[in-house]
Amino acid sequence: MRKVSIVGIGQTKAGEHWQRSLRDLAVDAIKAALQDANLERVDALYVGNMLSGELTAQQHLGALIADWAGLGNIEALRVEAADASGAAAVRMGYLAVASGAQDVVLVCGVEKMTDADAETANAAWSSGMDAENEALQGLSMPAIAGLMMHRYTHEFGVQRQDFAPFAVNAHANGANNPYAMYQRPISAEAYAKAGMVADPVSMFDAAPLCDGAAAVVLCPSETASEFGSKPVRIRAATVATDRLAVHDRKDPLFLQAAYLSAQRAYQQAGVGPGHIDLFELHDAFTIMAALSLEACGFAERGKGTHLAQEGEIALQGRIPISTMGGLKARGNPLGASGVYQIVELVTQLRGEAGANQIGCHLGMAQSLGGSGATAITHILGV
Amino acid sequence: MRKVSIVGIGQTKAGEHWQRSLRDLAVDAIKAALQDANLERVDALYVGNMLSGELTAQQHLGALIADWAGLGNIEALRVEAADASGAAAVRMGYLAVASGAQDVVLVCGVEKMTDADAETANAAWSSGMDAENEALQGLSMPAIAGLMMHRYTHEFGVQRQDFAPFAVNAHANGANNPYAMYQRPISAEAYAKAGMVADPVSMFDAAPLCDGAAAVVLCPSETASEFGSKPVRIRAATVATDRLAVHDRKDPLFLQAAYLSAQRAYQQAGVGPGHIDLFELHDAFTIMAALSLEACGFAERGKGTHLAQEGEIALQGRIPISTMGGLKARGNPLGASGVYQIVELVTQLRGEAGANQIGCHLGMAQSLGGSGATAITHILGV
Repeated sequence: MRKVSIVGIGQTKAGEHWQRSLRDLAVDAIKAALQDANLERVDALYVGNMLSGELTAQQHLGALIADWAGLGNIEALRVEAADASGAAAVRMGYLAVASGAQDVVLVCGVEKMTDADAETANAAWSSGMDAENEALQGLSMPAIAGLMMHRYTHEFGVQRQDFAPFAVNAHANGANNPYAMYQRPISAEAYAKAGMVADPVSMFDAAPLCDGAAAVVLCPSETASEFGSKPVRIRAATVATDRLAVHDRKDPLFLQAAYLSAQRAYQQAGVGPGHIDLFELHDAFTIMAALSLEACGFAERGKGTHLAQEGEIALQGRIPISTMGGLKARGNPLGASGVYQIVELVTQLRGEAGANQIGCHLGMAQSLGGSGATAITHILGV
Repeated sequence: MRKVSIVGIGQTKAGEHWQRSLRDLAVDAIKAALQDANLERVDALYVGNMLSGELTAQQHLGALIADWAGLGNIEALRVEAADASGAAAVRMGYLAVASGAQDVVLVCGVEKMTDADAETANAAWSSGMDAENEALQGLSMPAIAGLMMHRYTHEFGVQRQDFAPFAVNAHANGANNPYAMYQRPISAEAYAKAGMVADPVSMFDAAPLCDGAAAVVLCPSETASEFGSKPVRIRAATVATDRLAVHDRKDPLFLQAAYLSAQRAYQQAGVGPGHIDLFELHDAFTIMAALSLEACGFAERGKGTHLAQEGEIALQGRIPISTMGGLKARGNPLGASGVYQIVELVTQLRGEAGANQIGCHLGMAQSLGGSGATAITHILGV
């Protein structure tokens, strides 16, 4: 397998883009990534998206976006793994370059959610769960997170308020990210008073659904120095799955796919969790942040909130997370989020993270699909 | 790149499966493919599907199908390229094995269309076109095919009846395929009297939308002899795209993506159209069969119907097409069709095509997404 590097990144602000369509957002991110790589042409495009069929009656985003970005008659396909679709597209771009089939590849994650009303968008989001056995019984993504969080507090003897540091940390970091949807800090007191979405999941436990697009340019590591920006190596790219419905899992509070995907990534990169300088995790809900830290070996079972309370997830902590705001403050445009995570990792590894810069040589991103049935992990290094 | 072979195939009958859900159909095809390969475990699963989100409120088919097929915690992702989604999943499986990232890979194409009424299914199918500039203006897939066919008759001085041999040939071959939706021949007279769908596209010009699933097992060619069935090599796997909206194309009667995808495939395999013994093309509409033959070098511009009328597309002709019924008679379960084509090619190349068996060493399959904006070509050989 050829080694693969990232030589270009681009992103739109995550948020409510009333004047921009799905194709506009994708093209904006792609143009930024091509400019960053000092490139005009690529050999292939892989698009990560979850809901454009349901929300905008548009499938076939590979051809659509290649067309509207003026990329010519290149190979272009869409990959979907629910909320992890963006990371899945990165995985596919990685395979295309690693195999030798393609040399210079664009990966774009895009989601346009504000073309539908919030209720429709939320219902469509449920299609990442088991439709027959969860969604059609009335469960939504926030409801599943609520059940998991409630069980967690019961099982491990913690309180709802113990999850506050995840939201506070994400918002503190998002305040310095010009691409974040919410660029303002919140306090633990505000968290305590936040309105409930699905008890005990409050507004400040749930990342906001929104519009957005992010893109990266991949190429073989041996030619990476020819491009405009400082290359970042993909040291690992892995996917694992779990039972789709939470009630089918042996332990609803252990993210088996996240665990396996991380283990495979550590093995590929020849490292362990102790070598990882930052971890962009899937904090769609604060409970998922805690469970991800535990599954990936950064905290013991039931101790995810402790790690957060001890300040270890902050920029100066042992394992900084959500360093550019995470899904919580940057916003969660579902099929784009996995690519935003990679863009943010690259930003840190290049030393371009401004006020949020941490010292780092090795970073990990992990994206979850549905309530954790798919986990896709990338380890990047300079 | 490692060489890749197909060592297992499986399929359900294409048709109306009122008692089987999407996940049931996928599992049926997968079990058949695993049995054919004499295998119980695989390393990864790639699923081709177009419309499960719209029609059954279920996305995240990678994790769902890996779960329900009992495949364990393997890598599992879905790929989408409208009607070419199945072929796109084969392309992704090919990249995973060729790269060395995975050794034994399942590819499954599945579509469940009868859970929605025909109008809803037809509208959802339009999401493979340009939603904003074609579908929302009232165009449907049959309507676009009607415009193209009408223009073709005008441009090249042929009649609607000249397309009859495509339908007659497909139905003659489908009559001997136990997995085909329509296992009965039709006559040129019946074609002449068929009811119009979108003038001049009649019922017998349009392939029927339906349910179905097909699966293949891929592995490195060097280990292919270890499995249960006679291996078939993937000599080429290519993707090309064109402008999404037909009105944006320089020439609406030339399938640029089909042309480029075929050219790239010929180059990869080191062959030309003269070496191809059979061609499983995308006959969702008879006009697309004619245009595909022309774009891929089997007929001159405007001579696709001539080739058919001269009997050259029949089993004993120069370039047999739709040898197991094609989309027209086997049925067109959108995101599954591209995998059915591969299964049918393998059936021929193994010499297991029964009454429809032709002498062949090299076969080509081409799947089109939307009205030809994506074309995915595979060349297989023994």
